[in-house]
Amino acid sequence: MPNTDDQLAELLRGAEEVIREEDLAARLKEGRPLTIKAGFDPTAPDLHLGHTVLLNKMRAFQSYGHRVVFLIGDFTGMIGDPTGKSETRPALTAEQVAENAQTYKEQVFKILDAERTEVRFNSEWFGQMKASDMIQLASKHTVARMLERDDFSKRYKGGLPIAVHEFLYPLVQGYDSVALSADVELGGTDQTFNLLVGRHLQQAHGQKPQVVMTMPLLEGLDGVNKMSKSLGNYIGVTDAPDDMFGKIMSISDELMWRYFQLLSSRPLDDISRARSSIDEGRNPRDIKFELGQELVGRFHGAAAAEAALAAFISRFQQGQLPEDIPEVNVEASEGSLSLAQVMKAAGLVASTSEAFRMLKQQAVRLDGERVSDRQLVLDVGVVVTIQVGKRRIARVTVRAAG
Amino acid sequence: MPNTDDQLAELLRGAEEVIREEDLAARLKEGRPLTIKAGFDPTAPDLHLGHTVLLNKMRAFQSYGHRVVFLIGDFTGMIGDPTGKSETRPALTAEQVAENAQTYKEQVFKILDAERTEVRFNSEWFGQMKASDMIQLASKHTVARMLERDDFSKRYKGGLPIAVHEFLYPLVQGYDSVALSADVELGGTDQTFNLLVGRHLQQAHGQKPQVVMTMPLLEGLDGVNKMSKSLGNYIGVTDAPDDMFGKIMSISDELMWRYFQLLSSRPLDDISRARSSIDEGRNPRDIKFELGQELVGRFHGAAAAEAALAAFISRFQQGQLPEDIPEVNVEASEGSLSLAQVMKAAGLVASTSEAFRMLKQQAVRLDGERVSDRQLVLDVGVVVTIQVGKRRIARVTVRAAG
Repeated sequence: MPNTDDQLAELLRGAEEVIREEDLAARLKEGRPLTIKAGFDPTAPDLHLGHTVLLNKMRAFQSYGHRVVFLIGDFTGMIGDPTGKSETRPALTAEQVAENAQTYKEQVFKILDAERTEVRFNSEWFGQMKASDMIQLASKHTVARMLERDDFSKRYKGGLPIAVHEFLYPLVQGYDSVALSADVELGGTDQTFNLLVGRHLQQAHGQKPQVVMTMPLLEGLDGVNKMSKSLGNYIGVTDAPDDMFGKIMSISDELMWRYFQLLSSRPLDDISRARSSIDEGRNPRDIKFELGQELVGRFHGAAAAEAALAAFISRFQQGQLPEDIPEVNVEASEGSLSLAQVMKAAGLVASTSEAFRMLKQQAVRLDGERVSDRQLVLDVGVVVTIQVGKRRIARVTVRAAG
Repeated sequence: MPNTDDQLAELLRGAEEVIREEDLAARLKEGRPLTIKAGFDPTAPDLHLGHTVLLNKMRAFQSYGHRVVFLIGDFTGMIGDPTGKSETRPALTAEQVAENAQTYKEQVFKILDAERTEVRFNSEWFGQMKASDMIQLASKHTVARMLERDDFSKRYKGGLPIAVHEFLYPLVQGYDSVALSADVELGGTDQTFNLLVGRHLQQAHGQKPQVVMTMPLLEGLDGVNKMSKSLGNYIGVTDAPDDMFGKIMSISDELMWRYFQLLSSRPLDDISRARSSIDEGRNPRDIKFELGQELVGRFHGAAAAEAALAAFISRFQQGQLPEDIPEVNVEASEGSLSLAQVMKAAGLVASTSEAFRMLKQQAVRLDGERVSDRQLVLDVGVVVTIQVGKRRIARVTVRAAG
């Protein structure tokens, strides 16, 4: 077990903000297992690597013997959207919650130590809570403080409606920290306000306020926007080994170091040594291979990682491995472009009719995979290596126009 | 039973605002007993005539066969002030609520028809309500609408805190109308916002929105400020017959007509005739006697009213009955003045030492009652007839300085 200074350095790795660092140091020095809380949405989970930044941090706490609570916020999920305005937030049934929890477990236990993870549901304490207790809870915060939250403030000033119950949700989330006596709460930077409500409510309930640690939102494959399903710039944790490996190989060298920091479990000084090795002439591609190996290995095992590497190398001709491939940005004005348009815009073909001809001739590969469907469409956010015949190749990023 | 037009005219009597008058007319035409709701605070009741304006209106509805609900808001009363900041709003126990309800009944059934009054408590439906239902309720209103309420708006703009639960209370009160399927809700003008929330929630729950009728806040004995315990300008419903009668005789003629409109149960055309009779030479004092008789009779019976009138007349010398008494305003800079200072300021004595001497000689009467205590203090808002010896007399109003 490393001393608390070394623990602290590793735990702070990649964190965006810690409130307050000295409190975390003090609690680590107490030498007891701390309670680490992270909340998750109860809606259908389908995690990508962006989500795993938080899971990795939870895992880091586990590795030092701390108690990690994977909290599923099913109480509000089972209420759904009570205004009835959002079709995307239907009320979940208890069965759906249980099903989603099962899917979560299948995915997150690839990272978290199942033995040291408590999966909890906030309906445990909120399900039987009375209206009068909710009023008591609501008395613990002011309207003015709520309106300081960035999104509320913008909507209020912009004349967009905020339903009164939306002021209760940060209190619900904050009270979860009271119910769990959390020592530390982890969340994305977009959660800072809610995590601070937890501190406030713990104090109001006579508890020592939790340490709040926010993790940055991971950039997607384009290196610009945050990783998200809807932008298409993501690596899903259930992606097949070859896909996952190929996507990792498609990222820029700069983004690779960011992924090392936030996704790799290699120690910081190890990563620092890898960085120096490039100055001494090492090919960054080989280091990217290592990152791909580690991440594919985490979700699919070491053998699958080896196979993905081998398949990747064999798919590309010698001399045209990814580091030699020119990078091209293509702009899509309506959220997506057909593959043929992308090929033309990237200068890989002279016209879309040439593109269709090459597709028909089976001379086009996307990330090494042969494609022939002329209907193929690429969404904004997609990063893909397109090869036409033997010599024409480019790493193409589809960007939003403007 | 009068036709609905005559009912409507009497029901609208003295009302400050009706939303909407045509809806009330339409409901009266339905010919069924309407449900009339009025909410009351569960804290220690000690009613003055200001409160009876509402009770009189409830009684008017009863007289036409409608169902009146005297609703005691014990649910929030039993929560008290959850911020813990207000010492004047401790949480009530169920025993205290029951006790206060008993006191209410003793007082209000002097006006309301006990047979046609349902005394209800909103803990009936809120006591078992779950936190999730409270969230659903909160989703039915927006933050912006809440901040439109006058007092919230002032506090928010003035940087004074509003606790989030304060936004829930208008919803609680509004939901009471849903639970009771109220046709009409009565309240003071300071309640307009909350009564409108009731309309809104009834619509959200598929009910026809209630008619909202607000009654003005009755002016106190000084004719300026609203009647209130803390200002001292009130007539309590449990005041002794002689006190009550004397206080009524102390009001101005102008205020008398206001009291006739809002407190008397005499028909409007009857009051109108009394008004004309003054133009024909009748003494307003005699009409004030009638008002005094009616109100004392209501709370103490006809015999006590007769006795109070006789005692009042006998206390004053012939030729010095109240209508001849000069009116004097005296300013108090700190909320009250000693009787001796008041006497000096009113010009009844040359100095406070003369006042003390007259008190010692038993030569001073307040509202006809001999007093001799030199420690007597008169609060701002008090209106009293002071007589010194046989000839010096004044009707004195103690006002706040400034």
